[in-house]
Amino acid sequence: MPSPSVAAPLAPSLELRAAVADLYAEYGDVLDGGDLDAWPELFTDPCLYLVQPRENHDAGLPLATTRCESRGMLKDRAYAVQKTQMYAPRYLRHVISLPRIMAVTAERIAARANYAVFETALDEPTRILNVGRSLDLIVEDGGRLRFRERICVFDSGLVPTSLIYPV
Amino acid sequence: MPSPSVAAPLAPSLELRAAVADLYAEYGDVLDGGDLDAWPELFTDPCLYLVQPRENHDAGLPLATTRCESRGMLKDRAYAVQKTQMYAPRYLRHVISLPRIMAVTAERIAARANYAVFETALDEPTRILNVGRSLDLIVEDGGRLRFRERICVFDSGLVPTSLIYPV
Amino acid sequence: MPSPSVAAPLAPSLELRAAVADLYAEYGDVLDGGDLDAWPELFTDPCLYLVQPRENHDAGLPLATTRCESRGMLKDRAYAVQKTQMYAPRYLRHVISLPRIMAVTAERIAARANYAVFETALDEPTRILNVGRSLDLIVEDGGRLRFRERICVFDSGLVPTSLIYPV
Repeated sequence: MPSPSVAAPLAPSLELRAAVADLYAEYGDVLDGGDLDAWPELFTDPCLYLVQPRENHDAGLPLATTRCESRGMLKDRAYAVQKTQMYAPRYLRHVISLPRIMAVTAERIAARANYAVFETALDEPTRILNVGRSLDLIVEDGGRLRFRERICVFDSGLVPTSLIYPV
Repeated sequence: MPSPSVAAPLAPSLELRAAVADLYAEYGDVLDGGDLDAWPELFTDPCLYLVQPRENHDAGLPLATTRCESRGMLKDRAYAVQKTQMYAPRYLRHVISLPRIMAVTAERIAARANYAVFETALDEPTRILNVGRSLDLIVEDGGRLRFRERICVFDSGLVPTSLIYPV
Repeated sequence: MPSPSVAAPLAPSLELRAAVADLYAEYGDVLDGGDLDAWPELFTDPCLYLVQPRENHDAGLPLATTRCESRGMLKDRAYAVQKTQMYAPRYLRHVISLPRIMAVTAERIAARANYAVFETALDEPTRILNVGRSLDLIVEDGGRLRFRERICVFDSGLVPTSLIYPV
């Protein structure tokens, strides 16, 4: 069998693919580990982090449950979650699919991945918090890959009142 | 540490592994994106697409909830889902595990992956629709990889009445 | 774009990354396939296999729902599950995230992955059994990679009475 070339027009190198996979793996691990201070470092500054219901996204409506446009806004968000908001203790757990690299240029990588986030509140069984797809632009910045854009489009039309932690 | 050789008798190249991962990532993405017209293109023609409860599969019984043996049958199925069937609007979301490559020959790749499919109906919380394993034969066809066989064996003995979309 | 070097101090080769991914994929596949006799072979001898609630793990408390320190103990556990314990028939299904390689030395690889395990009992819908993270030490042993340590830290504070199969 000749070496297959599924992604002929894109041609991300194996090294680049590995670095993209690492970014997704690190993203879920950092959020679930509870160290939200490391989370803004996974984005460029400025950036776009958007969490949006699919109905709105598909209709081109701008409403989003979370919107951050700089690392400072991400830090504010992390601080609010850790220090100022009142909520029952809970753990999050991301299971992120294999990312799909859609396009590679000299400047950036367009990629996407499906995700399921599970939530476990104290003394309660684990439940599904949020499932969806992230539509991402990834760039090299400061010697590593970071998200320039991360748009998390979740499937449920119900805006979860308990979407406290980032997805 | 010498370079490990877990899969000595198989020896898929890194490029082939990447192409297999891409096929699985594309498969979930295409189905969940709702563009079912692109779904049959991920199979060869003829092909075998089977969705089967695990009890039947393990017992060697042929009963399957879905069986398609050509790209035309897949197109019929996609058309029926999109145009002729009556059901409440819903979104599907696949989270597919790392595929496991079982054997590689000059003609084909035997691989398998675990999957969880989540379903979100309008104004309802997300729930688990179907979990299981796909047993796949993958071939190069028309310059890319496609499924020659995809047998989705799902764990629940209950045949879901709402298994409308492909898994 | 220059070749990104996200993991500069670690620098696992692409071949090593592939072998690590294979180990995780095989692990879930072997457990879910129901052939528990193959499961101890994925560990070194001696080893450490620990299943522990996150509250205990984070507090440094040793309590674990399962602890095995040799391949013999793993075999005992597999035998008990298959032959001596009484429970309703059920299937398990692992969906394991992309592993994150944390450190590589000449002797071992530190890696971790998020997991969700689903359970399907006879004639019941599939439910979430256990989600969490495995903290793993992987070594080359007998020509392939095996777990020297696998610590599964699960999120729910409730010790599941039905955690019969390994995770």
